[in-house]
Amino acid sequence: MPHISLPKGLPGIIGAFAFRPETAKPMRELAEVLLRGPNTLTSGAREMIASFVSARNDCAFCRDSHRAAAAHHLDGNYELVDAVRDDYTTAPVSPKIRALLAIAAKVQQGGKHVTIADVDRARSEGATDTEIHDTVLIAAAFCMYNRYVDGLATLTPADAAAYDLMGHRMAREGYIRQTSA
Amino acid sequence: MPHISLPKGLPGIIGAFAFRPETAKPMRELAEVLLRGPNTLTSGAREMIASFVSARNDCAFCRDSHRAAAAHHLDGNYELVDAVRDDYTTAPVSPKIRALLAIAAKVQQGGKHVTIADVDRARSEGATDTEIHDTVLIAAAFCMYNRYVDGLATLTPADAAAYDLMGHRMAREGYIRQTSA
Repeated sequence: MPHISLPKGLPGIIGAFAFRPETAKPMRELAEVLLRGPNTLTSGAREMIASFVSARNDCAFCRDSHRAAAAHHLDGNYELVDAVRDDYTTAPVSPKIRALLAIAAKVQQGGKHVTIADVDRARSEGATDTEIHDTVLIAAAFCMYNRYVDGLATLTPADAAAYDLMGHRMAREGYIRQTSA
Repeated sequence: MPHISLPKGLPGIIGAFAFRPETAKPMRELAEVLLRGPNTLTSGAREMIASFVSARNDCAFCRDSHRAAAAHHLDGNYELVDAVRDDYTTAPVSPKIRALLAIAAKVQQGGKHVTIADVDRARSEGATDTEIHDTVLIAAAFCMYNRYVDGLATLTPADAAAYDLMGHRMAREGYIRQTSA
């Protein structure tokens, strides 16, 4: 049961967003820019970073919904997303994405954990400054979203099909609430 | 030196915001709503929570700039802000604010650290659901801002007067960038 009286039946962050539309608006916009805005990193890669960080923060709702969103961007390739979650150092991703995941893992622990060597490695694998920036900010932002979802003890669906549907919508329609219902 | 090529001479998050205006916009709006929007918690109390969480994340830029913003909202009472940072359990704040600080401290560690007992205590001291929500989200949001600032190794001024000036501006003018310079 959520710690505060959230609107009934809305899972995870959706319930918290409905409770406080004033803060939901910029939080939705940030997710949209970070995960679906124009970028040299694919939405699949960005959603994978989001799910990876959420797993490390032990936030089941964000981990599984962004896992599904990543998979939907990657032609249904849940195996790849799970391989990254389980061990990004051996998952079949490019050396650039692996170096960015290493940075995201450091940010999850705390900003100061990121070293010059981490950044140099990403750059030597072809990462641009904007890609490094966005990786740091995606990881940092999910340290917010994850704490928001779990700090309020929002509803976490147990049904895998619910996440698949959510991920499909997130990938296709994005994060900005439609003004018409 | 910052990990990526940020605009020169801009301290902390200001440099990162200038590098990536697309993400700066919702991040500024979120800070504005959380710290200066209409609320039954004063801006002084909310800025104090922001500085308190930033101290626990060891982010000097956010800790000291929001310390100054809190103090400017509190008629220059830096002593109170520092007392909360040093030991909120003995600082001269109301029982309600103390209970909210306890929740913020838990969120900083991770969302699941917040217990029903923490929330019940805040409620018994008079905190509303919205005040509990906003405390959770301020703490969560500063887990993002702090990681963003330090994950990019942004410029941290050493000069106390620079923070006093920043805090004065943050308290008076807020967080939304002026469209005209």
